[in-house]
Amino acid sequence: MAGVDSGLLSPVWAGTDVVDLVSDEAWVAGMVEVEVALARAQADLGVIPREAADAIAGAVPDIDVVDLAVKSRGGANPIVAFVTAFTARVPPSAAEYVHRGSTSQDILDSAAMLLVSRALTVVTRDLHRVATALANLADAHRGSVMAGRTLTQHAVPVTFGLKAAGWLSLTLDAVDRVRAVVLPAQLGGAAGTLASYVEYSGDPDHGPALITAFARHLGLVEPTVPWHALRTPYADIAAAASVVTGALGKLALDVQGMSRTEVGEVVEPSAEGRGVSSAMPQKRNPVLATLITAAARQVPVYATVLAQSMIAEDERAPGAWHAEWQPLREILRLVGGAAATAAELAEGLEVFPERLRANLALTGGTIVSERLNVALAPLLGKVEAKKLLTRLSREPDFSAALRAAPELAAVDVDALLDPAGYLGANDALIDRALARFRRT
Amino acid sequence: MAGVDSGLLSPVWAGTDVVDLVSDEAWVAGMVEVEVALARAQADLGVIPREAADAIAGAVPDIDVVDLAVKSRGGANPIVAFVTAFTARVPPSAAEYVHRGSTSQDILDSAAMLLVSRALTVVTRDLHRVATALANLADAHRGSVMAGRTLTQHAVPVTFGLKAAGWLSLTLDAVDRVRAVVLPAQLGGAAGTLASYVEYSGDPDHGPALITAFARHLGLVEPTVPWHALRTPYADIAAAASVVTGALGKLALDVQGMSRTEVGEVVEPSAEGRGVSSAMPQKRNPVLATLITAAARQVPVYATVLAQSMIAEDERAPGAWHAEWQPLREILRLVGGAAATAAELAEGLEVFPERLRANLALTGGTIVSERLNVALAPLLGKVEAKKLLTRLSREPDFSAALRAAPELAAVDVDALLDPAGYLGANDALIDRALARFRRT
Amino acid sequence: MAGVDSGLLSPVWAGTDVVDLVSDEAWVAGMVEVEVALARAQADLGVIPREAADAIAGAVPDIDVVDLAVKSRGGANPIVAFVTAFTARVPPSAAEYVHRGSTSQDILDSAAMLLVSRALTVVTRDLHRVATALANLADAHRGSVMAGRTLTQHAVPVTFGLKAAGWLSLTLDAVDRVRAVVLPAQLGGAAGTLASYVEYSGDPDHGPALITAFARHLGLVEPTVPWHALRTPYADIAAAASVVTGALGKLALDVQGMSRTEVGEVVEPSAEGRGVSSAMPQKRNPVLATLITAAARQVPVYATVLAQSMIAEDERAPGAWHAEWQPLREILRLVGGAAATAAELAEGLEVFPERLRANLALTGGTIVSERLNVALAPLLGKVEAKKLLTRLSREPDFSAALRAAPELAAVDVDALLDPAGYLGANDALIDRALARFRRT
Amino acid sequence: MAGVDSGLLSPVWAGTDVVDLVSDEAWVAGMVEVEVALARAQADLGVIPREAADAIAGAVPDIDVVDLAVKSRGGANPIVAFVTAFTARVPPSAAEYVHRGSTSQDILDSAAMLLVSRALTVVTRDLHRVATALANLADAHRGSVMAGRTLTQHAVPVTFGLKAAGWLSLTLDAVDRVRAVVLPAQLGGAAGTLASYVEYSGDPDHGPALITAFARHLGLVEPTVPWHALRTPYADIAAAASVVTGALGKLALDVQGMSRTEVGEVVEPSAEGRGVSSAMPQKRNPVLATLITAAARQVPVYATVLAQSMIAEDERAPGAWHAEWQPLREILRLVGGAAATAAELAEGLEVFPERLRANLALTGGTIVSERLNVALAPLLGKVEAKKLLTRLSREPDFSAALRAAPELAAVDVDALLDPAGYLGANDALIDRALARFRRT
Repeated sequence: MAGVDSGLLSPVWAGTDVVDLVSDEAWVAGMVEVEVALARAQADLGVIPREAADAIAGAVPDIDVVDLAVKSRGGANPIVAFVTAFTARVPPSAAEYVHRGSTSQDILDSAAMLLVSRALTVVTRDLHRVATALANLADAHRGSVMAGRTLTQHAVPVTFGLKAAGWLSLTLDAVDRVRAVVLPAQLGGAAGTLASYVEYSGDPDHGPALITAFARHLGLVEPTVPWHALRTPYADIAAAASVVTGALGKLALDVQGMSRTEVGEVVEPSAEGRGVSSAMPQKRNPVLATLITAAARQVPVYATVLAQSMIAEDERAPGAWHAEWQPLREILRLVGGAAATAAELAEGLEVFPERLRANLALTGGTIVSERLNVALAPLLGKVEAKKLLTRLSREPDFSAALRAAPELAAVDVDALLDPAGYLGANDALIDRALARFRRT
Repeated sequence: MAGVDSGLLSPVWAGTDVVDLVSDEAWVAGMVEVEVALARAQADLGVIPREAADAIAGAVPDIDVVDLAVKSRGGANPIVAFVTAFTARVPPSAAEYVHRGSTSQDILDSAAMLLVSRALTVVTRDLHRVATALANLADAHRGSVMAGRTLTQHAVPVTFGLKAAGWLSLTLDAVDRVRAVVLPAQLGGAAGTLASYVEYSGDPDHGPALITAFARHLGLVEPTVPWHALRTPYADIAAAASVVTGALGKLALDVQGMSRTEVGEVVEPSAEGRGVSSAMPQKRNPVLATLITAAARQVPVYATVLAQSMIAEDERAPGAWHAEWQPLREILRLVGGAAATAAELAEGLEVFPERLRANLALTGGTIVSERLNVALAPLLGKVEAKKLLTRLSREPDFSAALRAAPELAAVDVDALLDPAGYLGANDALIDRALARFRRT
Repeated sequence: MAGVDSGLLSPVWAGTDVVDLVSDEAWVAGMVEVEVALARAQADLGVIPREAADAIAGAVPDIDVVDLAVKSRGGANPIVAFVTAFTARVPPSAAEYVHRGSTSQDILDSAAMLLVSRALTVVTRDLHRVATALANLADAHRGSVMAGRTLTQHAVPVTFGLKAAGWLSLTLDAVDRVRAVVLPAQLGGAAGTLASYVEYSGDPDHGPALITAFARHLGLVEPTVPWHALRTPYADIAAAASVVTGALGKLALDVQGMSRTEVGEVVEPSAEGRGVSSAMPQKRNPVLATLITAAARQVPVYATVLAQSMIAEDERAPGAWHAEWQPLREILRLVGGAAATAAELAEGLEVFPERLRANLALTGGTIVSERLNVALAPLLGKVEAKKLLTRLSREPDFSAALRAAPELAAVDVDALLDPAGYLGANDALIDRALARFRRT
Repeated sequence: MAGVDSGLLSPVWAGTDVVDLVSDEAWVAGMVEVEVALARAQADLGVIPREAADAIAGAVPDIDVVDLAVKSRGGANPIVAFVTAFTARVPPSAAEYVHRGSTSQDILDSAAMLLVSRALTVVTRDLHRVATALANLADAHRGSVMAGRTLTQHAVPVTFGLKAAGWLSLTLDAVDRVRAVVLPAQLGGAAGTLASYVEYSGDPDHGPALITAFARHLGLVEPTVPWHALRTPYADIAAAASVVTGALGKLALDVQGMSRTEVGEVVEPSAEGRGVSSAMPQKRNPVLATLITAAARQVPVYATVLAQSMIAEDERAPGAWHAEWQPLREILRLVGGAAATAAELAEGLEVFPERLRANLALTGGTIVSERLNVALAPLLGKVEAKKLLTRLSREPDFSAALRAAPELAAVDVDALLDPAGYLGANDALIDRALARFRRT
């Protein structure tokens, strides 16, 4: 009644590093880590014997995940069944100290934060790879002039370096958002007062001390109050994840656009079996960009579930909490897969400057018509300049017509027509993005 | 690099019938069925030898799904790698007839429709169980008077039977929506012209005949045109699924509300280990309703991905298509799990009519104040009636004050106060819902 | 404290026919119509005097909408304040018959269905314009061969006619979905039993008769049961609307892709001031497609709110219902605006067959490489054919290399290379779409 | 062809302060401010005459918004038509300096950021009102013991103060998220190079200086690079808004639950005409909470549109940008309305401590059964303690049975049964939340 979780339907993450960090097995391992941290924190504070905590830490948790999942239906969450199974694997002398005073949500939320922490570490690592590759492209191609496109039409010249600098800026936004995510431990007991923990300790001031010790053992942030029904952390994770796939999705969409047969300005890094079609050998599909795009279409939507989970009733909600786990995991896999795939894409992207130039020339010089308007107005008068340009733009060869126009005999038309001379603050802007990259 | 797909994070479907129908393994099996159907259709039309089709049908497709998933990254979908692996398992004499003239999307979309068809069959079966149980409740409890609640406050009396009739109506809506979903086979070749199929056949009129034969072998509907980038079927499936979990989610939310400790009007069917807390033995958590609610919070959101996938460029889209598969599967699992869980809930729901009555009495007769307004106006005049009722409603015991009021000496106050006498069209409405149920 | 609702931020619907059908003023007018229909139905059944119903119908409802909106905060919906304002505009003799036995939601939901009905009529009219224009394009361009594109790359030839036939199929899907929407009247009284209506009538069987008469006066469908908290109609409307903008969004996205400067295969119909840039006279922005795309990005998301509104507690929900109205209106405006805009786009779209052909030639004949694989295999043997094609595809001019290849001396290479000869079932598929159009 | 924008369908914001800050008229006024800021920045840098900037600033922009909206269809955005209309209102001598070198998106995005800034200022002000009121409730009710509820069932005791401290924590999360939003000016020219601005200045280093001056005049943040197609700011605004309505939605949902007729622990502040029903005088509907809930159901969904807008092609996207404006405005109105409504709710919320206690007693002492488990185990042995408690919990009066049990003769049963004695870290947690409030 359960198969393999291979990523067959979501190849963007199949086989990437994030997969094992958030698998069903990783969740169970996370639950074990949390129970161990709780026991150790309680031992630190003298609530349970040190030996019991050690015995709990030493248990071999060979738990049947499929059986556990089915049993999870009984409590609507896996923890009740997990604690039973885990306790059975702890030496009898320590068994009564397992999960002492605890509640399902303390374990599951803390385990979730552990897994998120590890997944985001991998995501951050891969975003840095993306950023580094894009910074190199931005610098290397600051002079690779190309058509700037707005609403699908050639507008004015830009450079491929500036385009890469834009992608870089987004990637740095994504890094910043991921870094800003706060991952708190969860510890509250049945209804968030920590009453049972305190009762076991016999010390009325035990609560805050236990939170501190527990969070420290897990390497998570200490929360102000238990957050069983105060779900900002999940909403924050979802928002940060959306920015990551938003940033990478923009990169991917641009790569697809520039890869079009008619455009041909970039091509994805080639690899054995990638993007090819046996029946259509001329094809070189932008598959990495396609994988990233597929992820980027999903993450902001799944994030909605987590944002909505803030609207949760009472001390613990019957449904809002339970709806979080699966979309959280899928978000982490998609973000992890997209970052790994984008690193591969950015590091190997091939750019064809000659094709950039060729496309730039497609509109016969009109790509600098905005400039001509500005430049000729002081010479000819605004009205005359516009009249002339409108007339000449109807000629079959706009550039030639300009060069031949007697009104422009005194003007260096070639200089005006050079797209490389109409790049505005291109270099300064690239430098600003690179400076931000170096600060990050 | 891949674990087990147990449902640990989504217990609503863990262990239910839908799981194996849409597992990664089921998808691969579906791909095999589609290749077999294509070969048989081509054999029917004389394009490939009958023996080749039989050999393809007889292959043992022991394909490593994890390996296949990782290789899927190369083409951004699993089919290229699948065809290689599958062909290697076909006798050499038949190998060249595998996937003849075909394209990835023909196989994957058709396999998806097969799986959807099977999953929806299970869903429909379980919705019928839900509907039958609710019809019984509606009929049995047509006289179980209870407080109608609007904006959280007692309003006027209803019956539990009418409430069940409402849930029944929604369930029948869901059945209708699922039945209305059209599941077409997909067959178009590389860009939707069927050119390669036609080329292999040598018959310019081959295309429509092949579509017909192929759809018939799969038991799917014949499409008007190939729908590689015309994604109404996915949007329709998603919309129907949203209605299913919307209907069941309404039921679940009401069960939760009526289960509240202060309300106590219903309780979920009990089962070993269900809804209990070892530390808090007084608890009987509505876990079935919680599982259903969790599903209902997710499905309409995932459905958004499929609705948005209609916005797909060109003859085949680089991302929109690829984003569909995983949310489709998760939707099917959630809908299947929710329907199975709702059947269990509806069939075993315990209702406490005495508690319904007790709650009805909580507001001391004011629950029929709307009726008193209507009934007393002709007797006392509208203004006087209102004045009297307003004055008496400030008394500590409204019912007693009514009975004692000299203005009402001639009125059968007890009859007016009986909530069972103020049920309007209750029985007729229940009968209308039951009649619809019997028609379905 | 309120401005004008001009569409400034959503120009897709600014000034289109749907605007006045769903404005705040139209909602108030709809409420009036519903109160009139209720009075007339009650007069039909003898519950109120005919003269009262006539007087109610004759009232001049010059209601201050801004004042009404602010007062709506008191009841969380506009009806309480509306009834007060409206009653004050009815002759005193009829005043007590206004809103007799009714409840806010009966009026608001019924008014909403009225407005939806009118908005969808306009949408359907414009979808027919779109379909007619696309049918003409499909037929006229069945021979306009162009590059089929998959994953951004040229794949095999298609025709512009087939592409238009695909858009047509989607448009007909949209028409079918809109037609299938059922718009029921709402009549239930305070908690869905119709008790107050029945009480006023004095007839225990009054309920169903009143529903029938009321629905007939409004031209709406008679519901099985009141649906105050059974929200399938809203979910259905939302789903149908998503299919409409999904269909039109696909059309718009393709138009944008084909309008790209490098592609140049189509151009939007020109109009004074449309799509032009004063500073960049070479630009001809696809603004109609942009407006449609903007709508298509929003509708499926807003639809989520309506799909989620099914999960509504009790007899009337405190929030789910209230969240529906604004997204419903915005969906109607966007769908109405998108349909009007798409009609303009489809009716005036200019296609450049010579540019279709020029782009088709960009890949030097490799666009038929799939065909060459199929056609040469029987002549040269499968392995040899593939080897030859792979070798020749590396030549600078693939077509010339094919013509020069001694192995192909006996082959009519020019015929094989003609894209028009590799269109598979193109004509049959177009005819199937046109036949469906004629049936609709 | 356009009505009034009253909030009739969204009473949560009708008449609140945010309305006029983001009306269509406010958008046009924002556009004017941006054009003025651009002129002033250019005057500062000597690109245009100071007198021209002053004349532009002095223009009376009496622009017909409805006409402007309809004309916006021509460019798919309002700026082209706006600039024409605005320029006509500037003295002829200054007319040529209006919008000099600029592009639609520079104006519209910068105006949007101005409006967002003002709307968020109001939101922050109202969130502070909410936080202050909740802090007072948290402190005042730290001893108001009540039932903690998990999965709809009484679990263990909490206090109303702790519940308020939780709402406070969420509100502070919301304040933090709003504060963290960065609102950059937009300045890039046609394709993000600032080329036209630079061309007019004649100074190759003009670009960064102009960005600085322009942002300073607007009081907005200076961006690293133009962000025409780098849409993190919109995604951030949307995410912060979702946290605001998530936080307030949790508060509202809890108020609704505690307002239920059967629970009756709180009631909303009363006001003339609020929450009353003329036909059902016993009702006191939680309308403020309902308004907030309605907003909270919409915002995270609309936020999806803005999160998805990051996936935008080229230098300016044909649709993604255009889809942002209306959901942004609706988000701001909903967040503004929800914050204003929540301030009213939190400042006037009535709590009934005696009802809290009465509900706490409903389960006859079993609400401290978790504690009894812990406390009796060391006295009786774990197994015996559990056996005893299980046996006694089946008695009709659990408390009495405990007091009568001979095994517990030596135990102060009354002390153990006192819910106020089982509050764990209640006070410390409240203090932590209050300390955070004072720091904010």
